[in-house]
Amino acid sequence: MLFARARSSSSVDPETFRLHICSLHDARTSVHDDASAVQSITRSQSRATSGSRTDLSTDEEPDSKVKHQQSSRSAKVKKSVRETLGNAASAGQGTVSRSRSAGPETIAAKQGTIRMKNINRFSNFVKSGMEAFVLSSTKMTTKPEERHEIILTDKGPEWRAITQPYTCIVDKPKKESKLKGLKSFIAYSVTSSLSGIQVSRRYKHFDWLHEQMSAKYLLIPIPPLPEKQVAGRYEEDLIEHRKNILQIWVNKVCRHPVLSKSDVWIHFLTCTDEKQWKSGKRKAEKDEYIGGNFLHCVTVPAQSLDSNRVEHQVEGFSRVVRSLDDSVRVMYDRVTETHKRMAGPYRSNWQKMAAAIAGLGHSFELDSSPTNQSVTAALKETAHIFHKIGDEHEESAKRDLDPLLDCLYSYKGLLAGMPDMVNVHKSAMSKLRENERLSMEGKVSSAEAERIRSRVDAVSYAVLAEMEFQHRERGEDFKQMMGAYLEKQAAFYDGIGKQLAALATLFKNA
Amino acid sequence: MLFARARSSSSVDPETFRLHICSLHDARTSVHDDASAVQSITRSQSRATSGSRTDLSTDEEPDSKVKHQQSSRSAKVKKSVRETLGNAASAGQGTVSRSRSAGPETIAAKQGTIRMKNINRFSNFVKSGMEAFVLSSTKMTTKPEERHEIILTDKGPEWRAITQPYTCIVDKPKKESKLKGLKSFIAYSVTSSLSGIQVSRRYKHFDWLHEQMSAKYLLIPIPPLPEKQVAGRYEEDLIEHRKNILQIWVNKVCRHPVLSKSDVWIHFLTCTDEKQWKSGKRKAEKDEYIGGNFLHCVTVPAQSLDSNRVEHQVEGFSRVVRSLDDSVRVMYDRVTETHKRMAGPYRSNWQKMAAAIAGLGHSFELDSSPTNQSVTAALKETAHIFHKIGDEHEESAKRDLDPLLDCLYSYKGLLAGMPDMVNVHKSAMSKLRENERLSMEGKVSSAEAERIRSRVDAVSYAVLAEMEFQHRERGEDFKQMMGAYLEKQAAFYDGIGKQLAALATLFKNA
Repeated sequence: MLFARARSSSSVDPETFRLHICSLHDARTSVHDDASAVQSITRSQSRATSGSRTDLSTDEEPDSKVKHQQSSRSAKVKKSVRETLGNAASAGQGTVSRSRSAGPETIAAKQGTIRMKNINRFSNFVKSGMEAFVLSSTKMTTKPEERHEIILTDKGPEWRAITQPYTCIVDKPKKESKLKGLKSFIAYSVTSSLSGIQVSRRYKHFDWLHEQMSAKYLLIPIPPLPEKQVAGRYEEDLIEHRKNILQIWVNKVCRHPVLSKSDVWIHFLTCTDEKQWKSGKRKAEKDEYIGGNFLHCVTVPAQSLDSNRVEHQVEGFSRVVRSLDDSVRVMYDRVTETHKRMAGPYRSNWQKMAAAIAGLGHSFELDSSPTNQSVTAALKETAHIFHKIGDEHEESAKRDLDPLLDCLYSYKGLLAGMPDMVNVHKSAMSKLRENERLSMEGKVSSAEAERIRSRVDAVSYAVLAEMEFQHRERGEDFKQMMGAYLEKQAAFYDGIGKQLAALATLFKNA
Repeated sequence: MLFARARSSSSVDPETFRLHICSLHDARTSVHDDASAVQSITRSQSRATSGSRTDLSTDEEPDSKVKHQQSSRSAKVKKSVRETLGNAASAGQGTVSRSRSAGPETIAAKQGTIRMKNINRFSNFVKSGMEAFVLSSTKMTTKPEERHEIILTDKGPEWRAITQPYTCIVDKPKKESKLKGLKSFIAYSVTSSLSGIQVSRRYKHFDWLHEQMSAKYLLIPIPPLPEKQVAGRYEEDLIEHRKNILQIWVNKVCRHPVLSKSDVWIHFLTCTDEKQWKSGKRKAEKDEYIGGNFLHCVTVPAQSLDSNRVEHQVEGFSRVVRSLDDSVRVMYDRVTETHKRMAGPYRSNWQKMAAAIAGLGHSFELDSSPTNQSVTAALKETAHIFHKIGDEHEESAKRDLDPLLDCLYSYKGLLAGMPDMVNVHKSAMSKLRENERLSMEGKVSSAEAERIRSRVDAVSYAVLAEMEFQHRERGEDFKQMMGAYLEKQAAFYDGIGKQLAALATLFKNA
């Protein structure tokens, strides 16, 4: 039932849709034949946005604060490792690439590259397979299906733009149940503008998708899902709220040049058959091209990069992210506070004023002389309108501030994913420095050194392209959210002004 | 110097102005030749508005609450008696009418009327000379100068309307000093539209005038002066505030058909010569036609009144006054609270929001890429405008709410004077009942009984006329104050709406 709600127009085969999306790009993708052991450990999810200030320190230079954060973070990661490995085992899919640990016995590497291995085997750089990508030369067992390209423009490296943009609508949240009503859940319809296919998805499907994408696109911050709610998750307000954040989520995925072409996303978006859904899920979970290996799916310009310049650019990006992290948090708190005030004391002040004016009107009514009848009527109307304006404050909070808060929530979560990207890049850069030193000392061959340099360049290209995209998106995001918020608030205050002006006229003519 | 600031056009002789005002009315005033001993005790000033709920109980039926209030009130009155008597003595003007007590030895009255005397010699009814007016038949020593008339319209008894309305402007509060700077004070210019004469008056002059008018016009509530301030009375805000309340005060006096023709008011309004001022003051202080005797200046319709109907009407008025007293107090408190909020948390919320948006703008600025420059500029402008809107909340509180508060303050003070009028009338009505009883028992002559009935009718006519005026004024007052307040607030919210709309456009075009 969950998979059967395809529209009449949804006869489009999902595979056709996927091919269509892929054909959007002139897929001059380089296919790496290398394979390496990849640990299927997901990044700490970007959804965890509520905590403390995002940390942009490198893995290599942990200060005391970082140590503290890492200890709690690594606990999470370990749990995630257990779960993921457990998953693979229970699925009976213990493939070499996913179950093997990244120990030295599996990699045929030279003395130099072995020495370059990070001591911290729990760092994101190692776990994600990025170290393996940079240092090893083993072959991949399959061919990558997704292909992406980074091009050079006058603004620097960029992801090749989406040729045919599309959108998705998350709508019609609906309480459904299975096991004869024993289990109930909310299902949302997700409809893509390109295929017209409508699928029905639950939060747990989004959550699974988020996990897959976070694992696969190490250098791309994945927007956050709505926070997992247990209590009151069938309340109308909360359902609407989650729907809005899911909508922002799919908007962001659709706009991203890489994510919008993601295999797992396309599967999520188009699969209406339960059997196909399950097999597609298994396939995505076995994907070799995740983490560091995703870079095998990316064609980068041949031109080598100036590592000092790249480091400088990434450092600048880091500063922007740190600063934004603070300001978005402050803004979020302030809008939350304003929301509370509008629905609370502001509303009640208008309504207490309404009661005071109604009291005057009542006193006026005691005088039965006809002289003051129009003033009495004007007072009563004023009391009525003031009460209404009070209610409008609460409505405005919901209508004008909730969407702003949802956007800020999403942006906050996106920012929380950026330090991972920066830190992985910093680790790659430190491997590059080490490679240069070992190369000078003659401890790695020049072919090997060149291969490592080019692999680190691929990492840098991806990071630079993503930075460029995030800069651009940020402008667009804030343009949209501030524009919409201000427009709605303008209409709100304009409405109050107009209502008060009408009341003033009432008294003038009384 | 205080009296020398007449405009060039102020060559109009004050006496001419007075005659002019008097000629506004077709002075068919009945002149009573009766005279009685009048105690020159002023009513507890209506300015004392801050206290507890106005008490409308009669003098005759004091409940426990009334007793409590009266004890504190009578202390005030006693003080006032001492002061006034002291004044008269020090002025060497111990005239019979003012210095003599209202003891029975001064009045040639029959057994019946003596018996009718109130036991409570401190009641307003007795002190003001109203009892003497109703019961005695002694002659007045002088002829009344002011003449007023009550006419019958289809709405009932009314004060004859002002034929040629005029206005007064209180302006230019200015710090002045005398005794070579030893004493400093604020002087206001008061300019009448009818004569164009501009006089300079201090608060203490208004206070003196208020006292005289309160004593003279027992059945007319006198609007309150601004509260006496000692600390900070030279601060600009306070001076402006007092000026505004003084302006409301003179407006109300100018609009009143009796007060606007008052001798003492005309003297206050026109006298620019210090000698004349002092002699006019002495003359006003010696005025015999104050309190109960004021009714000798009033022509009332010959038609006798239905006492039951009058009592019912006054009771209705009482109810309105009691109810208004509560509602105006609630309204005053609510507007005061709103004032505080607008200048406090509302303002600060806009400005904290401004700071949050400025923070976003700052973070955007760290990214030196030109892509987001227009969004950065829009954020900075938004922060600037939000801060400005915050300040506008404080300005709006001052501009829109202060005048409303001043009007409510004045109205509250006016209401506080109304129970006096009602209570005096109730005492007069109880004298009427007693008179009827004694008359039936043959204890007063029918001529005497008729005289008393007609005197009580005069009191009723004055009260009914004043009630009619206060009903009408109330409508006008609230029409004006609510209209002005709503119009200004409408403009305020409209302004916010317009500014936000302009910002929204800025983001749309970014």
